[in-house]
Amino acid sequence: MQIIATGVCHTDLYHLFEGKPKDGFPVVLGHEGAGIVESVGPGVTEFQPGDKVLPLFVSQCGECRFCQSPKTNQCLEGWSSGGYETMSSLETRFTCRGQKVLQFMGTSTFSQYTAAVNTAKVEPGSTCAVFGLGAVGLAAVMGCHSAGAKRIIAVDLNPDKFEKAKVFGATDFVNPNDHSEPISQVLSEMTNGGVDFSLECVGNVGVMRNGLESCVQGWGVSVVVGWTDLHDVATRPIQLIGGRTWKGSYFGGFKGKHDVPQMVKAYLDKKVKLDDFITHKMDLESVNDAIDLMKNGK
Amino acid sequence: MQIIATGVCHTDLYHLFEGKPKDGFPVVLGHEGAGIVESVGPGVTEFQPGDKVLPLFVSQCGECRFCQSPKTNQCLEGWSSGGYETMSSLETRFTCRGQKVLQFMGTSTFSQYTAAVNTAKVEPGSTCAVFGLGAVGLAAVMGCHSAGAKRIIAVDLNPDKFEKAKVFGATDFVNPNDHSEPISQVLSEMTNGGVDFSLECVGNVGVMRNGLESCVQGWGVSVVVGWTDLHDVATRPIQLIGGRTWKGSYFGGFKGKHDVPQMVKAYLDKKVKLDDFITHKMDLESVNDAIDLMKNGK
Ligand SMILES: NC(=O)c1ccc[n+]([C@@H]2O[C@H](COP(=O)([O-])OP(=O)(O)OC[C@H]3O[C@@H](n4cnc5c(N)ncnc54)[C@H](O)[C@@H]3O)[C@@H](O)[C@H]2O)c1
Ligand SMILES: NC(=O)c1ccc[n+]([C@@H]2O[C@H](COP(=O)([O-])OP(=O)(O)OC[C@H]3O[C@@H](n4cnc5c(N)ncnc54)[C@H](O)[C@@H]3O)[C@@H](O)[C@H]2O)c1
Ligand SMILES: [Zn+2]
Ligand SMILES: [Zn+2]
Ligand SMILES: [Zn+2]
Ligand SMILES: [Zn+2]
Repeated sequence: MQIIATGVCHTDLYHLFEGKPKDGFPVVLGHEGAGIVESVGPGVTEFQPGDKVLPLFVSQCGECRFCQSPKTNQCLEGWSSGGYETMSSLETRFTCRGQKVLQFMGTSTFSQYTAAVNTAKVEPGSTCAVFGLGAVGLAAVMGCHSAGAKRIIAVDLNPDKFEKAKVFGATDFVNPNDHSEPISQVLSEMTNGGVDFSLECVGNVGVMRNGLESCVQGWGVSVVVGWTDLHDVATRPIQLIGGRTWKGSYFGGFKGKHDVPQMVKAYLDKKVKLDDFITHKMDLESVNDAIDLMKNGK
Repeated sequence: MQIIATGVCHTDLYHLFEGKPKDGFPVVLGHEGAGIVESVGPGVTEFQPGDKVLPLFVSQCGECRFCQSPKTNQCLEGWSSGGYETMSSLETRFTCRGQKVLQFMGTSTFSQYTAAVNTAKVEPGSTCAVFGLGAVGLAAVMGCHSAGAKRIIAVDLNPDKFEKAKVFGATDFVNPNDHSEPISQVLSEMTNGGVDFSLECVGNVGVMRNGLESCVQGWGVSVVVGWTDLHDVATRPIQLIGGRTWKGSYFGGFKGKHDVPQMVKAYLDKKVKLDDFITHKMDLESVNDAIDLMKNGK
């Protein structure tokens, strides 16, 4: 397959700068690509040369008990391949100057659009908070908006992100640095007790905790979307006993093979915004500049 | 009101021996009582002398946004009274030898029967695990059974509890002390990947973590029922991102005033077991023996 275009996602940065797994390098990063099939191997019946395709990290074998359940998008093949723990496959077909180069295939940023719908199950008229306004958070804002949320509070340390968040449907904007109280208290005061739904799109266990604790007692639901696995995530038991729910989302709760084509159709039908996610277009040679731009919140 | 009978619940022990809140003593413990109205004050229209009543900790004012929502049983009056944090009210009508004595009103053990149904939403044919087989855990086992669970794994460090758990519907029995591997791994192996639902009925943050991590990836739901608020509860973010849900239950998810009478009716109609919870009957004078019996798992 020839890759025509690819995005840069914080999951790439996580691998490079945060997770830095032992045995994780050298590696070909990037996992948000689109391309054209050049040739197919024996046994491949679903594709032929010239097909336009989106390679997906999330498998959908269609046969395991997970694929057969409407409750999850997490196929057994995905788990058993071992790619989940390290976010990179230990088998690789790449070599560079005689050395093995690992393949890296994470999750697809844009699919977080559906995390708000599939995982949080945001309800019409509800109040939501989205923490982190990278592509993942913006997609979550769009998801909350399309689910009919009345109020969408966009939270980021970088106020440059608020303008874009507004395009995707955010109604309120909070920079935790503007407040001396904990952000959960700020949101609680803004909403008379806490938000109905929150989505953590940063990848930071402190923010995950804030996400849960910003939810209203009784029925608040917080979804962890940001990826990190360096530290435990924690809260006081009373937060859960008090009626809050903590969940997570992987690939937006999408069944990859089944749901992605529908998302493509929704884009072609102009039902979801995608072009607004694009801030820069550059050649593969400038990939390090792309990484730097993301690191610097541009 | 004259209290005719009361149970002893671990929440009483928690107050006495674990939580030991500053300003929490002296206190009249006990909160699982039943009695008869002796007289009513001005403004009381719903009760008259001679009525048989169950005093409830959980308020249901019927008017706040929590009472009006089917999603929670947590009335605003309950929260704002401040009793929630300390499990004891700071206002009291009791005095003893001239000193104020606090009232203690916890939650009602037996109502955890409905935690399995209301909060976990246990499904027919599913596999459940219940950690801790005191009255709370036994009620949860009964709840799983009545929701149609196919397999109910009862987990306790005290194997004397297994016989009773069987009466309430448990199908498998695990003593963590019989295994060298972590209990989450034991349950995962027994169930080909983890249970669909787990309920923590111990009140220990380590067991809460085990409860979550014993759930199957993709859709497992773990409910915290046990009460403790001394330490944070923690897990790896990947446990949530992997599709598990963490919730909590307070008073079984019951709307007190509305749901308790239905539970009483279900007992009178012999639809739920209650007599099997009773292990000892003793006079108020022997209350310290009752506490000791509970402490010693009898
Ligand atoms: N679960 C999944 O399926 C999935 C899929 C794709 C990406 N991810 C993860 O989602 C996360 C976000 O990815 P992205 O590509 O949008 O990243 P990004 O770096 O573009 O955006 C992160 C945003 O969070 C903001 N931020 C940082 N610290 C903050 C704090 N304490 N409070 C509020 N905001 C803060 C940053 O300013 C930035 O705008 C990453 O952890 C990534 O690995 C998860
Ligand atoms: N959320 C609520 O509304 C609510 C209501 C009532 C009680 N509670 C709480 O529920 C918990 C249980 O109450 P109870 O009255 O049944 O207590 P109990 O003491 O009778 O029972 C607890 C059981 O847990 C077992 N246990 C202890 N450590 C264990 C471990 N590591 N693994 C497995 N089992 C273990 C004990 O052997 C015992 O059988 C308490 O924390 C209590 O405060 C909560
Ligand atoms: Zn599958
Ligand atoms: Zn990504
Ligand atoms: Zn109320
Ligand atoms: Zn109790």
